[in-house]
Amino acid sequence: MGSPVHRVSLGDTWSKQVHPDIQSERHMQSFDVEQLTKILDGGAQNTALRRKVESIIHSDPVFSLKDNYFMTQNEHYEAALKKKFHIQMLAQRLGWSEDSRELGYAYRSLSGDLALGVHNIFLKSIRSLGSEEQIAKWAPLCNKFQIIGTYAQTELGHGTYLQGLETEATYDAATQEFVVHSPTTTAIKWWPGGLGWSATHALVQAQLICSGARQGMHAFIVPIRSLQDHSALPDGTYIKLGTAKANYLTMVVTRVDILLGEVIPMLEKACVIAIRYSVSSWVQHSCDRLNVSGMASDPEAKILDYQTQQQKLLPQLATAYAFHFQASSLLEFFHRSYSSILDKDFSLLPELHALSAGAKAMVTDFCAQGAELCRRACGGHGYSKLSGLPSLVTRVAASCTYEGENTVLYLQTARFLVKIYLQAQESPGSTSQRSLPQSVAYLTAPDQTRCPAQRAADFLHPEHYTMAWAHVATRLIKDSAHHLQTLMKSGADWHEAWNQTTVIHLQAAKAHCYYVTVKTFTEALEKLESEPAIQQVLKRLCDLYALHGILTNTGDFLYDGFLSGAQIDVARTAYLDLLILIRKDAILLTDAFDFTDQCLNSALGCYDGNVYERLFHWAQKAPTNTQVVE
Amino acid sequence: MGSPVHRVSLGDTWSKQVHPDIQSERHMQSFDVEQLTKILDGGAQNTALRRKVESIIHSDPVFSLKDNYFMTQNEHYEAALKKKFHIQMLAQRLGWSEDSRELGYAYRSLSGDLALGVHNIFLKSIRSLGSEEQIAKWAPLCNKFQIIGTYAQTELGHGTYLQGLETEATYDAATQEFVVHSPTTTAIKWWPGGLGWSATHALVQAQLICSGARQGMHAFIVPIRSLQDHSALPDGTYIKLGTAKANYLTMVVTRVDILLGEVIPMLEKACVIAIRYSVSSWVQHSCDRLNVSGMASDPEAKILDYQTQQQKLLPQLATAYAFHFQASSLLEFFHRSYSSILDKDFSLLPELHALSAGAKAMVTDFCAQGAELCRRACGGHGYSKLSGLPSLVTRVAASCTYEGENTVLYLQTARFLVKIYLQAQESPGSTSQRSLPQSVAYLTAPDQTRCPAQRAADFLHPEHYTMAWAHVATRLIKDSAHHLQTLMKSGADWHEAWNQTTVIHLQAAKAHCYYVTVKTFTEALEKLESEPAIQQVLKRLCDLYALHGILTNTGDFLYDGFLSGAQIDVARTAYLDLLILIRKDAILLTDAFDFTDQCLNSALGCYDGNVYERLFHWAQKAPTNTQVVE
Repeated sequence: MGSPVHRVSLGDTWSKQVHPDIQSERHMQSFDVEQLTKILDGGAQNTALRRKVESIIHSDPVFSLKDNYFMTQNEHYEAALKKKFHIQMLAQRLGWSEDSRELGYAYRSLSGDLALGVHNIFLKSIRSLGSEEQIAKWAPLCNKFQIIGTYAQTELGHGTYLQGLETEATYDAATQEFVVHSPTTTAIKWWPGGLGWSATHALVQAQLICSGARQGMHAFIVPIRSLQDHSALPDGTYIKLGTAKANYLTMVVTRVDILLGEVIPMLEKACVIAIRYSVSSWVQHSCDRLNVSGMASDPEAKILDYQTQQQKLLPQLATAYAFHFQASSLLEFFHRSYSSILDKDFSLLPELHALSAGAKAMVTDFCAQGAELCRRACGGHGYSKLSGLPSLVTRVAASCTYEGENTVLYLQTARFLVKIYLQAQESPGSTSQRSLPQSVAYLTAPDQTRCPAQRAADFLHPEHYTMAWAHVATRLIKDSAHHLQTLMKSGADWHEAWNQTTVIHLQAAKAHCYYVTVKTFTEALEKLESEPAIQQVLKRLCDLYALHGILTNTGDFLYDGFLSGAQIDVARTAYLDLLILIRKDAILLTDAFDFTDQCLNSALGCYDGNVYERLFHWAQKAPTNTQVVE
Repeated sequence: MGSPVHRVSLGDTWSKQVHPDIQSERHMQSFDVEQLTKILDGGAQNTALRRKVESIIHSDPVFSLKDNYFMTQNEHYEAALKKKFHIQMLAQRLGWSEDSRELGYAYRSLSGDLALGVHNIFLKSIRSLGSEEQIAKWAPLCNKFQIIGTYAQTELGHGTYLQGLETEATYDAATQEFVVHSPTTTAIKWWPGGLGWSATHALVQAQLICSGARQGMHAFIVPIRSLQDHSALPDGTYIKLGTAKANYLTMVVTRVDILLGEVIPMLEKACVIAIRYSVSSWVQHSCDRLNVSGMASDPEAKILDYQTQQQKLLPQLATAYAFHFQASSLLEFFHRSYSSILDKDFSLLPELHALSAGAKAMVTDFCAQGAELCRRACGGHGYSKLSGLPSLVTRVAASCTYEGENTVLYLQTARFLVKIYLQAQESPGSTSQRSLPQSVAYLTAPDQTRCPAQRAADFLHPEHYTMAWAHVATRLIKDSAHHLQTLMKSGADWHEAWNQTTVIHLQAAKAHCYYVTVKTFTEALEKLESEPAIQQVLKRLCDLYALHGILTNTGDFLYDGFLSGAQIDVARTAYLDLLILIRKDAILLTDAFDFTDQCLNSALGCYDGNVYERLFHWAQKAPTNTQVVE
């Protein structure tokens, strides 16, 4: 049963004694937490390996995060640089290869708090874009940090649209050199991490110009700092080192890796912190009792016993689990598609694109919103850096914009959906319809006009809520496609018609993405038949996730009478009942994520529940609290 | 027509030439921007006074915000201290009294970037809680900064619920002293700003204990630092200086002041920055064009011409205007109630409480969400401190928790609504019903079961959408009251029944608050008959605000068939058409807020629209970009 020793590893005074308020939450275990951890890790072997890596990381003082909240920006950058070099050296010594599980676990336990992330993108890009000769030359230099690379794509005025970049690389036949130049202010390279201080070489994306003709985007390795004294090099001449080719699949797998390795864990951590805090403090939010002034309230009630607190936190917990299964399934689909592509079968590519774009947009949107909700659910202490929540919230919010802006990504999914829908309409019953991609097969499946669920228990049948989401997604995709066609028939060109209908396309894409996560979660549950206790507790989370989505979008379900007002009320009853059931297992469900205290780095969220002692002690360590003011 | 000189006052190279992209937005003025500014300021005199104060502030280098984004935490605190002393001295020199308009405008132009805000709360509390003798002693010391005060209410484990505080002040009859003591870890005073570094005296809220009997909360002035060398004093003996009395009205007016003076301006600024950026950059988001790959798009289209960008930003603009009128009206109501109270008529107090609690919760919630939306709408640059948006987003998010946590406040409004509803039910037609408080009079007004609006134009009639909101609020309040009663009839005590129904109470309170803002906005419009052009443009914002609320909560309107699915579609058409109309005036509507460039302190949001030049130039000034790396 569990491995509390692994989790309680701060070794401070309080961890030796778990607070009774949180201890009581772990007293009755309705399922085997350790077993759920292994399922989340994808097997007992992975769990063991992850814990081994975490022990190595946590026992090394260079990797300590404990002073993180008291550092200036420069100190933070230097510490992150140090960690980056150290982890790379460690990885070489222990034989952890670049894409190994070990290194992934190491990154997870460091909470991504490393500098020079783009050094790896530099190396990966050379590996995927370069010739074998080039890879042989540059990869070892990167691995030993004899050079430090950065990736310079984004420009001051240009985002993810690669063809719009303005930087030019003009071939000078006389000197046999490429002259790389930013012709305008908006063409200035912007945001390349590490470029300003550390990088010696940059992989620069630029328009190639040969004999006056534009040849499209190419990548150039540009030396930017002296390897002798690290001084910036003059803007001079450059050597051509590579030709570009499309590297679309790397982008897709990078997106999924970011979701699994960074974004979803941030929501998980926020849930751990906020939920542990909510059972450890029953005093803080006594302001809630103001509402019932004059009425005696249960003095033993913890914050998590309040319905509004459950309503804030438990849907976030359900979402974190839903996204875990969704992203894992997407990674599997990616590997399946990749194998097909190696066999020259590109048929899965459009679906992979739509699924990964939609998943990136939805997961980052929901995780950002959820982490902020968790922060607010911790009252004033949620705004203290020591809670760990402000840094989580900031980082997860940025994920909504990088690696593809979310509105743009949702609309790419929408385009796929409209296209599939119109194809299916054009040739009903034809081959193309029968072989509809799996994730959109529901578009032509038999639909119901009314939801048959009547009692609260009916709303806990996965087939009912999955069908409900499929119904709504189908209707919205149909509507958005018809709006588009109507505008085009009335003379608008495609671009104009598309722009005038993007608001409804967005709505359709969001409903489709929700459907996909619900469907994936239910499929993951089916595979857990050998673990009935875990299956039961996870099914509640799946039910909650599906119903929470319905109840926050009731209009979509009432619109055509698929659900009636009375059915919405029944669904809400089912939902509120679920909150009470899940609340009982809430701590165990957060324990199962198996984050170490070091990795959480939160005074509110430690395993032992000693919130106030730790908060007080950590605050005393702040430099501003140790200096004497004159 | 306008006063661009006032707004373009950075005096840098680019402000001399307004960028043609933003200039074209101001070419055709459908209304008099200057006149709208005066309306927002509450009269031409106020506008003139505000600008005079702003000139004084901006001409003084101590008040410059320009290095703000490059400071460490300590540097920031020191600069904010300096500004605080400087403004206090300036105010004394110029005769600006503590509650004067001048000082309010000065704070506005400094974007609240001052330390020791609690020094003023310390003084205000002494003024409202102390005897005349005490005020005479302490107020001059505060005004001349001979002492620095802080207000120590919140404890490590205790929030806004005053009676739950644990700190004790025990009277020792032998020495005639009060011994102030924190008996537990959770009783430690926490969050009092300035206490750690600067304050010499603290106003400490503590349980008074006399001869072993608890006498409830009292406020004590506790000297905490030596006035000679500022060293911390030993924990010793204290002098009793005041007795406590309820000061509820101060809290209410403080809430409204914070909304008008800090929170709403933050959303306004975020709108100014994001909307100006969206007409100045038509390149950045060219990734949008990825959606229409293969189709030629209008090369002159700015980001703000995209429907999704309008859908993100224009409802925020409408919300900022709605909240301006709502908070102004609430302030008026406060003064009316205050006059009555001076005449010993307390009848308006419950309504004032419900209105101010609900407004605080709703305004801070929406402003926090809206500011974050504005940041995301600026793509990657929205995450740069130089955009001004990250600091806005952080500060406005905190406002959801301080001065009353929002869920708690919404529930206080909900309690009032349930109470009023049940009273009206108990005695239909009686005096109590006829004299229902004005903001809830709709609860007994004649209701319609179906919305009569059919065509898009119908949805632009204020009576239709106001009625729609009243209908939904009434139904939700009725439902939540019935749920509560049903549970109590089945044996639950009041506390238990309340806790099991808080989720629906929250929903009811939110609908009521939305109704109130819509209603207030329409009433403000009626007063603008002498300004038809301004009335027209503001009416569009009011329409947009009301319809946006309906379209993001369609379920509430479809639930009982008040609106049909077909009517929702028509409302959406009306809404999308409004976006196009408002987009034309968007820059003028943001100009009307009349924020100076110094006050915005944003590289993306300056009046002249020279986004990229300024971003590039400001980034060069960052210390990290001027140091040579070795």
